[in-house]
Parts: sequence; C-alpha cells; structure tokens
Amino acid sequence: MIKRLLIANRGEIAVRVIRTCREMGIETVAVYSTADKENLHVKLADQAVCIGPPPSAKSYLVKENLIMAALRTGCQAIHPGVGFLSENADFARAVQKEGLIFIGPDPDVIDLLGDKVQARNTAKKYGLPITPGTEGAVSDPQAAVAAAEKLGFPVIIKAAAGGGGKGMRIVRSAAELPENLAIASREALANFADGTVFIERYLENPRHVELQIIADGNGTVLVLGERDCSVQKRHQKLIEESPSPGVDDDMRRRMAEGAVRMFRELKYRGAGTIEFLVSGKEFYFMEVNARIQVEHPVSEFVTGVDIIRQQILACTEGRLEIAPDSVHLHGWSIECRINALSPGKVTRLDVPGGPGVRFDSFLYNGCTVPPHYDAMVAKLIVHGPTRERALARMNRALQELVIEGIKTNTAQQRWIINHTTFRSGQFGTAYYGEIEKEVEHVH
Amino acid sequence: MIKRLLIANRGEIAVRVIRTCREMGIETVAVYSTADKENLHVKLADQAVCIGPPPSAKSYLVKENLIMAALRTGCQAIHPGVGFLSENADFARAVQKEGLIFIGPDPDVIDLLGDKVQARNTAKKYGLPITPGTEGAVSDPQAAVAAAEKLGFPVIIKAAAGGGGKGMRIVRSAAELPENLAIASREALANFADGTVFIERYLENPRHVELQIIADGNGTVLVLGERDCSVQKRHQKLIEESPSPGVDDDMRRRMAEGAVRMFRELKYRGAGTIEFLVSGKEFYFMEVNARIQVEHPVSEFVTGVDIIRQQILACTEGRLEIAPDSVHLHGWSIECRINALSPGKVTRLDVPGGPGVRFDSFLYNGCTVPPHYDAMVAKLIVHGPTRERALARMNRALQELVIEGIKTNTAQQRWIINHTTFRSGQFGTAYYGEIEKEVEHVH
Repeated sequence: MIKRLLIANRGEIAVRVIRTCREMGIETVAVYSTADKENLHVKLADQAVCIGPPPSAKSYLVKENLIMAALRTGCQAIHPGVGFLSENADFARAVQKEGLIFIGPDPDVIDLLGDKVQARNTAKKYGLPITPGTEGAVSDPQAAVAAAEKLGFPVIIKAAAGGGGKGMRIVRSAAELPENLAIASREALANFADGTVFIERYLENPRHVELQIIADGNGTVLVLGERDCSVQKRHQKLIEESPSPGVDDDMRRRMAEGAVRMFRELKYRGAGTIEFLVSGKEFYFMEVNARIQVEHPVSEFVTGVDIIRQQILACTEGRLEIAPDSVHLHGWSIECRINALSPGKVTRLDVPGGPGVRFDSFLYNGCTVPPHYDAMVAKLIVHGPTRERALARMNRALQELVIEGIKTNTAQQRWIINHTTFRSGQFGTAYYGEIEKEVEHVH
Repeated sequence: MIKRLLIANRGEIAVRVIRTCREMGIETVAVYSTADKENLHVKLADQAVCIGPPPSAKSYLVKENLIMAALRTGCQAIHPGVGFLSENADFARAVQKEGLIFIGPDPDVIDLLGDKVQARNTAKKYGLPITPGTEGAVSDPQAAVAAAEKLGFPVIIKAAAGGGGKGMRIVRSAAELPENLAIASREALANFADGTVFIERYLENPRHVELQIIADGNGTVLVLGERDCSVQKRHQKLIEESPSPGVDDDMRRRMAEGAVRMFRELKYRGAGTIEFLVSGKEFYFMEVNARIQVEHPVSEFVTGVDIIRQQILACTEGRLEIAPDSVHLHGWSIECRINALSPGKVTRLDVPGGPGVRFDSFLYNGCTVPPHYDAMVAKLIVHGPTRERALARMNRALQELVIEGIKTNTAQQRWIINHTTFRSGQFGTAYYGEIEKEVEHVH
C-alpha cells in the first residue's frame, strides 16, 4: 500500500479523495492556489502546498509545480481528480517519469480514448454501435458539407480532443456548416490546444447514458451499472441517476458486454466511464472519460462500492476487492448538482440528514467560494428502493438544505425533480432546453 | 394513507419522524416546550404547537395537552418517538379513545411487555431462554435473600416497570441485599410510579444484543438483524453496531425464531426491539422495548429499510412493504451517539459527508441546546462492507465532525472506536466501566 498521495485538484473532488484515503490509511497532500488557501480540501488534508495564483493555468494546470510538490512531500502517487489534468496523457507520462504512480489508466490509453475519432474507431472494433459520422478529422468546409449531406442533417461538429460541450456545434443545414466548422475548430483549439473536429449525425433528444467501469489493468473489468445524465444545461450535467429510466435489461447487458470487451482489450486501469446516446431501443457509443466522474456517487449508492478506493487499489496494486459476479445493483439513486450562481461568503450551511441521504461538498460555515473556478459547490445524492421513493427523498432533502450568503440553484433543482416530465422518466438531452426559461425564474 | 400526524416528542427523534413523513406525503405537527421553540423539529414540521414549559412533566409528558394539540390541528395519528410517553399504555389508550391512531402496538401489549416480570414469563412461554430469577415481584428482604442465595450471587435487582438502568442494583452478597432492595424499589417508584422489583442472576460482562422487529399487527413479523449495544455507560448506550461481533449464524437464527414466535402470538404491531444478554454461546431474554429505538439507523443501513416508514404503515394500514424473505443484511454499520457534555449555543457545526456516512441531529448552526432534556444531540452512523472498513469510516467521520460552542463526547467516542478492545470486538457491558477513567480524560 502507498503511504502518501498528492491530489492535483481542488474543492469537492479533492475532499472526496481525502475521505477515502483517510479510510485506507493513506496520507494526503493537498495543493491549492492562493485563492483557495481556506478551502476545505486544504483543511482536511494532512499537508498542503501552495502551487500558484488563480487562474488555473497558473496553478492547477502547471504540471511541473504539481509534480514538484509531490516529490518534495514524499508522495508515491498523484490523483488527478476530475477536470484540470485528469485526462492529460502528457501529465500522466511526466508523473510516471518521476517514478510516481498516476491514478489513472496508461498514458497511451488516455491518448487513444482522448482522441474522439480514435475512440470511435476503437469502440466500433469491439462491436459497439457508433453514430454514423466522418471516419476522421474534417477541416475543409466543402468536404464537410459533402460529408454532412451524406449523413443527413442535423449533424453535430465535435472536437476530437474535447469534452464538456466545448467545441460542439449542432448544424441543421448546409448553409450554416462552414461558419460553425470554423467556430468549433477555434473553440477546440482554445480549450484543448487541438483544433481537430469531426462530424456525426445529430440525434434529436437522445438520452445520455453511461456505464461506470472499474478495471484492474490486467483484464478484469467491472461494470457498476449505468447512469442517466440526460438533464444537461448546454452539455453540463445537472441531475444524474442510476439506473436509467430508459434502459432495459437487454440494453444494459448489450452495453456492458461491448464495454467490457473494449476495456479488457485496452488493459484499462482504474475508474472510467463509457458514454452512450440512447434513442428508443438503439444506443450509440459516444466517448470514454478516462477518469473518475462527478456523478460517481449514484453508482456508489446502488452498488455499495467505494469507487475511489477501487480506483486507487487498481492503480497502485493492480487489484480490485470485488469480483465481477459480486456486483449487485440495489434500488435507485439520484444526484442533484448544487451550483453557485454567484461567488461569495457562505454565511450559513445546514445539511440534510436521515436515511439514504449523502451530501458531498467543499462548503463549510463561513467559507468563501472564489470566482475563478467551476460553479459546482456541492452534490446532494439520495438512495431509495424505487425511483419514486428516491424522488420523494430528494425533494425533502432539497427542502432541508440551507445555503445562505451565495445564490445557488437549489430551488431550481427542486422545481425540476418535481416537474411532470422529469417525474415521468421520459426525457432526453433536449429536456432542459425546453424548461430553461421556467427554471430560471425559480428562486 | 393518513394526512397529518402529531409527533409527541422533541429533538432528534422528532426530526427523524418528520423526514419520513415528508417522504410519505404526511403532514407533521410538532409540539414544543417554551425551552424548545427554536428547536429544529419545530422549524421542519408543517405546524407546531406549544404544550407548556420545561421540565417534561409540564409539557412533553402531559397526555391531555398532546392529544388536544392533535385534535385541534386535525391529526389522524400520534407518533410517540422514544422516551417520554412512548411506552405508556395509558397514553396509547387515551389517544385511541379520541379516535386517533397511536403509532405503536396495542395498549394491552404495551402493558404486558412493560411489566418486566410478565414479559419474562411470556418469553419463556414461547421458548426463549431467560436468566434464572424470581418468578414474580419481591418485596420482603428475607424472602429476597433466600431467593438470591438460591440463584447464586451476584444477582441484579430490577424494576418491573423499568428501563434505562433506573431501579437496577447489582448485589454481590446477602449482606448488601436488603438495603439495595429498598433503594431499587424507591427508585422504581420515583421513576415509573411503580415500586415493584424482582431479582435475577447477574451475568458478569455479557454482551447486550437486540433484534429489530417490525410487524404488521396481523401476524407477519420481520427481523431486521441484530444490534450489539454493549458499550454502555451506566446502562446508557453509547455505541451500537449491526451485526454483533459476538453472534454467529446459529445464535442469530435461534434468537430470531423465538422472537418471531413471541411477536406473532402477541399480534405485535409496528417497530419493536427484543433485548438479550449474551454470555459465550448462551443468550437470555432481557426485555422488549415496544417502540422505535435510538439506534434503529444501524439496522436501516444493513437492511436498506426505512423502519419509521414501515412502523407508520403497520400502525395506520396494517401492512408492511417488505416480505420476510426479502430482508437481506449487507455489510456492517456502527453508530456513535454524540452527547452534549454541557448545554449552550452551537456556534459552529460542520457535518461529515462522503460515502456511507449519515448524520442525524437536531443541531443547526446557531441553535441552543437547552439544559432540560436528554444529553444526546446527534447520532453519527456509518456503513461499510466489513467491520474494519466501517471502523475506518467512523474514525474519519468523527475527525470531520466539528461542533463548537458546547462540549461534546466526540473525541471520547473516537478514542473508544480506536481502542484495542473495541477494535477486537471482544467486549461486554462491563467494558465501558473498565475504560471510563481513561475516556473521561479525552477532550
């Protein structure tokens, strides 16, 4: 077992990793920007190292500083969390070069999966259905129009190196394509230092469904059920649940079989997510996120597995504590992301309790939410025997949650989980766009 | 389904009942003493009625005021919580006489089980082993000495109407018996308005093990596993866990068989607990608590069942949502009671989060803990796949818990759960007494 681990991240996910490390007896080293020196992850970690000022490009994204901090504090491993450098193969390589363990898959696997075009081709190779699209990168506007017309409009332009909605453009006619191609490529270049884009047929209002994977790096691959993340505001997930109301046993089995094949052949290591678009009875491979995800707690609730623990064991010892046939799914879990609508000082925090409620956050009474980072400040996660019971629990837990001093989306989330369409389970990724104007009036 | 329910209690258990009622769509009416008007249960309930000043004898124990409050607010049922009037058959009868539902078993069943002598004889009738003791009440000192000498010293004098350690005396020789008999009887009279006592053989350092029962009142009886509550400070439980480190499958089965027989024959309704003393491979019936118990969350964690919900369904609709063969026990759960060592204003409360952690409390930031009531202010409950993992989780959750403004036993609890004897699982009810001096120096 490793003795000390550096967490190259901040806020909620850093707190989450610290919690599991403490339970495993692993000491933690936090890193922080000057804007984060009073952040909860700094208070909870065994040690903390300042790595620079905001914005992230001067601190959380400076590979050398992170690796230096790990070496100076005698860490054996680095956990990248989510976002920042979590899917950066160069960082993973640099970490390994210094003799440290990177808590994630092999850098070459990150590279392969991080290139969306290569990932699609890999998925296809292992028998997973993919949405019709260009075989490779597209840059010439005329070739793009020809490809799009062959696929049929609407189409979606995606950044090959992308994620989180950046560099994505939906195009409904040939006339709009050249301009959008240029914008998407510019966005991709700005966000991922790589302007490569490709084109896929655009599915209208599909469900976003993903499988939680943990794998030991030696060919053992576990699927911890699926998550439905269809409630998205401009590709930013807002509410996630497990299981998905739109996936039946047959689809679940087919998705898992393909995913296990692919991850086994890649000798994937640690935690990962394979994302699909679901349209009726069909599903299409979208991409792999080669890291832990924000919404992992819903899978923890339905399986009883501490995913961060298994991720660390897989990456540091090449083993998992759970056998594939011992994964059982129980009940229903839902997560509401609590986002700050303004930065500022939290003057009051009252956290919900009772059975089946979990609150993961970096907030504490009197803390300050700096303006520089992601808007998510907390995750409220519930579990119940059925979707209806989980929804009733989420409703009362959201009622109990009090955050004062900053504006949050708590009331908006409560509006959605009580909305008829959300309750019905019949919705796709277009759902939030349809209710957005109503939701934004909720306070 | 009933529409509105009055909770004849305060603090943590009142908050707990409100949470489940909200999820069931049942409106709640809180009651409060003038000392409790800012209590969390008052804030969370749909309505609240003041029922008098402290002490409890002038408010929470005034049957007429509670029933009047329920009638005036249009309630259909009264939940008595724990303590106060929760095992008072006269109160249950008075509630029923007004056409209201009492969330508990039939008053005659409460009477029968509340009389410890009758309860022992009932348990014996259904094949449960009982500790050797007097068949009935003992009042004459000479007869008491004769009975004790027949049983063999040490013996324990117990209040027939008692509970919670009141009216209990351990006696190690004939010479000490008459005086202790008088003291026990006086204590019993003062606390339970009934001076009747009886004598049992005293087991040295047994385990305290109890089964969580829910029953529909029509003969269906479910056992939700056992709890070990051996860590007690003068009969006040401090740490509870499920399962018990001292119970094997065979003992668990034998206990459950006898308990199911007894509760089925009594047509028991709602939630109840049957308590045993365990000494090596033997177990002895001790008593039944005909109500929900403080430590019920550990059973909720290992079974996934909301016990308050099933209790309400059993008592209002004569049904349970779970079949006896669908109860499955998963993992290990531990509860630490967080007690206030002083009353006062809570100036800071930071609650632990992450997987497998539950925090049930009536504390909030800025609340005041009045001096008049029970010392327990919160329950920290964890769940993990094994006892070792649950202990690691409890350790880190206790580290995260911050309560400022009042003194609590948080650090003491952390000392105990890291103590070699507690970790070993090999301890009985004498354990706390052995470590008490050390524990009390922990801050």
